[in-house]
Amino acid sequence: MTNKQQDRLSTDRALKQRARAVIPGGMYGHQSTFQLPSDYPQFFSRGEAGHIWDCDGNEYIDFMSSYGPIILGHRHPKVEEAVAQQLASGDCFNGPSPVIVELAEQLCERVSHAQWSLFAKNGTDATTLCVSIARAYSNKSKILVASNAYHGAAPWCTPVPAGTSDSDRAHLIHYQFNDIPSLEAAIELAGDDLAGILVSAFQHDNVVDQQMPTPAFAQYLRRRCDDLDAALIIDEVRAGLRLHRGASWELLGVQPDLSAWSKAIANGYALAAILGTEKYRKAARSVFSTGSFWFTAASMAAAQATLTLIDSEQVIERISKLGETFRSGLAAQAVSYDIGISQSGPAQMPLILFNDDSRDKKERGNFFCNEAIKLGLYLHPKHNMFFNGGHSEQDIQQALDICDQAFKALKMRYY
Amino acid sequence: MTNKQQDRLSTDRALKQRARAVIPGGMYGHQSTFQLPSDYPQFFSRGEAGHIWDCDGNEYIDFMSSYGPIILGHRHPKVEEAVAQQLASGDCFNGPSPVIVELAEQLCERVSHAQWSLFAKNGTDATTLCVSIARAYSNKSKILVASNAYHGAAPWCTPVPAGTSDSDRAHLIHYQFNDIPSLEAAIELAGDDLAGILVSAFQHDNVVDQQMPTPAFAQYLRRRCDDLDAALIIDEVRAGLRLHRGASWELLGVQPDLSAWSKAIANGYALAAILGTEKYRKAARSVFSTGSFWFTAASMAAAQATLTLIDSEQVIERISKLGETFRSGLAAQAVSYDIGISQSGPAQMPLILFNDDSRDKKERGNFFCNEAIKLGLYLHPKHNMFFNGGHSEQDIQQALDICDQAFKALKMRYY
Repeated sequence: MTNKQQDRLSTDRALKQRARAVIPGGMYGHQSTFQLPSDYPQFFSRGEAGHIWDCDGNEYIDFMSSYGPIILGHRHPKVEEAVAQQLASGDCFNGPSPVIVELAEQLCERVSHAQWSLFAKNGTDATTLCVSIARAYSNKSKILVASNAYHGAAPWCTPVPAGTSDSDRAHLIHYQFNDIPSLEAAIELAGDDLAGILVSAFQHDNVVDQQMPTPAFAQYLRRRCDDLDAALIIDEVRAGLRLHRGASWELLGVQPDLSAWSKAIANGYALAAILGTEKYRKAARSVFSTGSFWFTAASMAAAQATLTLIDSEQVIERISKLGETFRSGLAAQAVSYDIGISQSGPAQMPLILFNDDSRDKKERGNFFCNEAIKLGLYLHPKHNMFFNGGHSEQDIQQALDICDQAFKALKMRYY
Repeated sequence: MTNKQQDRLSTDRALKQRARAVIPGGMYGHQSTFQLPSDYPQFFSRGEAGHIWDCDGNEYIDFMSSYGPIILGHRHPKVEEAVAQQLASGDCFNGPSPVIVELAEQLCERVSHAQWSLFAKNGTDATTLCVSIARAYSNKSKILVASNAYHGAAPWCTPVPAGTSDSDRAHLIHYQFNDIPSLEAAIELAGDDLAGILVSAFQHDNVVDQQMPTPAFAQYLRRRCDDLDAALIIDEVRAGLRLHRGASWELLGVQPDLSAWSKAIANGYALAAILGTEKYRKAARSVFSTGSFWFTAASMAAAQATLTLIDSEQVIERISKLGETFRSGLAAQAVSYDIGISQSGPAQMPLILFNDDSRDKKERGNFFCNEAIKLGLYLHPKHNMFFNGGHSEQDIQQALDICDQAFKALKMRYY
């Protein structure tokens, strides 16, 4: 590390030192820089449209969008205004504000399968409640989940076994995404105890190429759930509102019974939603679902504004187009440097991996991203990224210029 | 119901009607008015200090404080200022803001047993993580919990069985609060698989008199956890920061290994915290704990301000004194009307029950509270209440005047 780079992150390093004393491991969860390259800052102080600033004041073009929540751009003025207006009268009362009804109506109007809504705070709250509602409806226990899919951090779904016990997953059975024979084998194993099938809107497992669902797979899932009177549950926490204005599988003509939402729903304000069909209403009512802050008004006001703006500002079309521009530019650069890369998933939620990179260490990806972060572009070497409506065409061009320099450095180092 | 009362809640009734279409049962969780008397509004629009306004503009002295989160009073100006200042630069980034370190330091300075902190969004997140950390430390599974204690709404702890399966509670063993023989029996049952003992800061189960822990019970718990190398986990979600500036059992000279916090920690902003001792730091690091909004800055800025103000405004002393004034006044009224009541728990978190009331229906309690709500006082007939620092002595006097009228009506109706 050069002195210049050390200076660049001096506040961050001092904070990391303090954090090590009072936070286990210095930081926890998906926002820990523990597994990121060395020049990534841990702490951030400011966001505006498509840009963020770390605690040392360094500016970055932000292609992570806070791991998904920022869909309109950081601090979209109309969302901030809606929040400020709600906070001016209050947020957390003995009951919800009228906004909960308006937001539930807005979601039911917007999402084809939605005939009711519940609200919570975490994506994990939403996936967990969907599973509970499927079990309450059917009085059965088994839930089929795709191998390696991420559905949250509670003991039943966390990808890390520490602190869990066998009973936490006693009723999960695994299948392979987009693989009908493996799904049939899982259904067979569930026997007459199948409550539901949980599936991500698309396959976005860490550190492997992303996969869209095949129409055949999606339609098969729907048909089999109908046959078996099992709930088709779609986890929209990560993908939701970036592929389609409603539920992502509306693009495939497939409606789930239950869907779990969070992240982008309120442009960064803490909210989750569970949407469901009439058939599951009574079961949804029977499950005890609550939390101290599940009824707070400001994040719901933020969601109302966010949903409206996704449409009026044509955010999905725009981030899709910007994503395609970036993807094409990056592909051309890779060819010109004769470096093999894979770009997978929807263009607005890309994952970039380097061919011949080691599965675990991802040395080339790490090197490339570390060059980019030093030049002012926040990429992620292992996780899918997220474009947002705050990104301009100029941001994309500037990002491509930075990537060109990162390719050049990578070429010299590894090829 | 008279016409006047119907008019009083006309907006609320119209909203409830709309809610029934888009929210299962019309509302869910602890903030549903489903089990409250008929004149309780479901929807609220404004809060200020010790008062709230429903969506029809009716004003109430608020003795529920949003079921706990409001500890300084609604919209305390310094908390609102801290939030607005953070929101002006942003809230949700690719990493936490420096405020996470400052807040963790503040909590570790403040709470005797705390040597590290993790942050989350729900009380349930915090209790669940404490259990996982105890299991990760010990590589054992059994957790002892007090019968009927509320520790959250996840499948392992929800009070309602719908949607859960046996395996969710496979490793829980029950004891009775304040009862050493029942605790020993539970320890015996756990055998060599005991990971931890979970206990509420005081017994605040629904619809039964609240109980403070006896010093002997608290000290015995600590000693047995030491003997068995099991984690003593205190659930501070409801009581935390209303009994003591640090952990509630510091008053008894007993330190837990792990503690779960939420509700009052940020005066209504969504935040939870897990605090623990050095011994459990490595285990805390090993458990994957995360959520999309667990790193957001504004609720942490709110918590910093809230903790400081709890001390500088002597909130615990003040709500305790106001609680005592209300308790004495109410007791004198009960005697004067010759109506038997029990007032249990700490004065700042009182539960009021009527003698000879039916266990399930609580007709007298419901009638009394329904009289009060019509006159502008928000009491709860079954759940403990929460005083906050926004309450004035005048609020307490006015509340007692309303209670006097409610007693009068109750006397005529039932005695």
